[in-house]
Amino acid sequence: MRIAIVGAGSIGLLWASRLSRLPYEVTVLTHTAAQHKKIVQAGISCEELDGQVVHTNVTSCPIEETSELSPFDIIFITVKQYQLQNVMEPIQRCSHPFTQILFWQNGLGQEKAIDELHYRPDTYVALTTEGAYRKSDTYVVHTGQGETWIGTFPHQGEWKPLLQDFVKAIQPIVISPIRKESMILRRMWEKLAVNAAINPLTTILEVPNGELLSVDLENIMEKLTGETCQVANRIGVELDHSRAIKKIREVCNLTSQNLSSMLQDIQGGKRTEIDSINGAIIQYAKEHNVPVYWHEMLYTLVKAKEAHNKRNTNTL
Amino acid sequence: MRIAIVGAGSIGLLWASRLSRLPYEVTVLTHTAAQHKKIVQAGISCEELDGQVVHTNVTSCPIEETSELSPFDIIFITVKQYQLQNVMEPIQRCSHPFTQILFWQNGLGQEKAIDELHYRPDTYVALTTEGAYRKSDTYVVHTGQGETWIGTFPHQGEWKPLLQDFVKAIQPIVISPIRKESMILRRMWEKLAVNAAINPLTTILEVPNGELLSVDLENIMEKLTGETCQVANRIGVELDHSRAIKKIREVCNLTSQNLSSMLQDIQGGKRTEIDSINGAIIQYAKEHNVPVYWHEMLYTLVKAKEAHNKRNTNTL
Repeated sequence: MRIAIVGAGSIGLLWASRLSRLPYEVTVLTHTAAQHKKIVQAGISCEELDGQVVHTNVTSCPIEETSELSPFDIIFITVKQYQLQNVMEPIQRCSHPFTQILFWQNGLGQEKAIDELHYRPDTYVALTTEGAYRKSDTYVVHTGQGETWIGTFPHQGEWKPLLQDFVKAIQPIVISPIRKESMILRRMWEKLAVNAAINPLTTILEVPNGELLSVDLENIMEKLTGETCQVANRIGVELDHSRAIKKIREVCNLTSQNLSSMLQDIQGGKRTEIDSINGAIIQYAKEHNVPVYWHEMLYTLVKAKEAHNKRNTNTL
Repeated sequence: MRIAIVGAGSIGLLWASRLSRLPYEVTVLTHTAAQHKKIVQAGISCEELDGQVVHTNVTSCPIEETSELSPFDIIFITVKQYQLQNVMEPIQRCSHPFTQILFWQNGLGQEKAIDELHYRPDTYVALTTEGAYRKSDTYVVHTGQGETWIGTFPHQGEWKPLLQDFVKAIQPIVISPIRKESMILRRMWEKLAVNAAINPLTTILEVPNGELLSVDLENIMEKLTGETCQVANRIGVELDHSRAIKKIREVCNLTSQNLSSMLQDIQGGKRTEIDSINGAIIQYAKEHNVPVYWHEMLYTLVKAKEAHNKRNTNTL
């Protein structure tokens, strides 16, 4: 079975390393030719939770040159939401009608990318809370055990046998459970509600996640989440306010010392995922005439911070 | 004529230096005994716009010990809005029924302080755009020429002859015009509208004033100012939205390299004036049932930043 992993960030490298331990043909499709070369030369090193480093070799190809490849049976897309539009055409070229495509993004917006596939292979969303950190272009650290949910998306349906067998086959190499989720859209919104509160607030205030509990921000989080639930409910997703708030508190507590990915992006001078998180909520809200003041405000502040950072980086 | 200046910050020291160049009896009422001693020992040095340093001596007294003093004819109150409540009783003790009291605060809230005076001396609000910077407890730098408006407050009325004569007499020592303002409340709200937009945004983003124009924040400033105008109009102050926005842009342009006082306070680990600026607007809004989402959000974020700073300072 031929498997492709599109994107070689932390999650992409983690899966590349895991799958290459089984007798699969794993190809990593990289954004740049430079990273492709490094992966070919050095292989992938994965530092496991127990500190052990596992080294494996994988095939690799720059995403621009996939037209020569024969189609893949399973494709993991692990690029960021805002990079999706750039990879859909190459993915189209190397998939066949029964390819199983799994989207591993944060936030919302995958349905737009899926719309760009001419014929519709079977598509899924995978949500994961596993922690991984990319130390270099070929070295990834598995930093925390989590859970993974997979569900058909954008249409509700059953897993195809190919995916069913695949997930069963990879059990020996994953330590974190992979669950089938029939209500993946609701779970996406739950994750969105958490990210839409924690990410922008920690980014604007430049504080670790736990600080959101000790300062007087619970009020804002309540109001933000109220808006998120209103938008979700308007588009037919049952998102419960108090359950979402409980989840947010839980994540702040469990990751109290961590810097959110958005804050890390800002500090690293990178583009954040605000557009597919709060930006996506604002987009749905506009389409359904729901007022979302708090999301708009945080969105604008994070965008301003991004722009300021970019200008400062450019003038260095 | 006996003049008191309450508070020896930048504006207090600037006025103490100026007035002590005329044959007035000037007394600076200090917050601490330590600053009182320094002023007695060293006098006040004022670095003028042309770089010249003028040295003068003034009388001084800690604010706690004013009960022994005979009453003053004119009192400048230059402490911050949130310190007003601590100084009203001592001021009461050293004023007589015809004392002319001038409040030099940013923001709103003076009427509460004035309410605490048992009998009502003549009270005024002075608004100034002059720039001053306190280099040490006894050294002040006049950093920019501005304008000063004085009007009776909280009740609309005429200047009393004593103040009239006084302002005429001090003309030779001020280079910035002092204007009589019959609509001081409206001017206070105009200044408030400017501060309520520039101060919290620059503080949250940690950028100089000019950055508010180059990033996509004009939208937030429009909405914030819309709320400010609504609240002002509801309490009977005619505040024009487009005029306020024009003023905000003008200030951002003229002071583009400057850090707002609120950002300076945050960076110095000090308490900000958010309560008497956005906090005051929120207070009036509550009393008149006007929704002020944008002010609430910025207020909470600045408060969170203040609290975070305080915790960090305490743990150092």
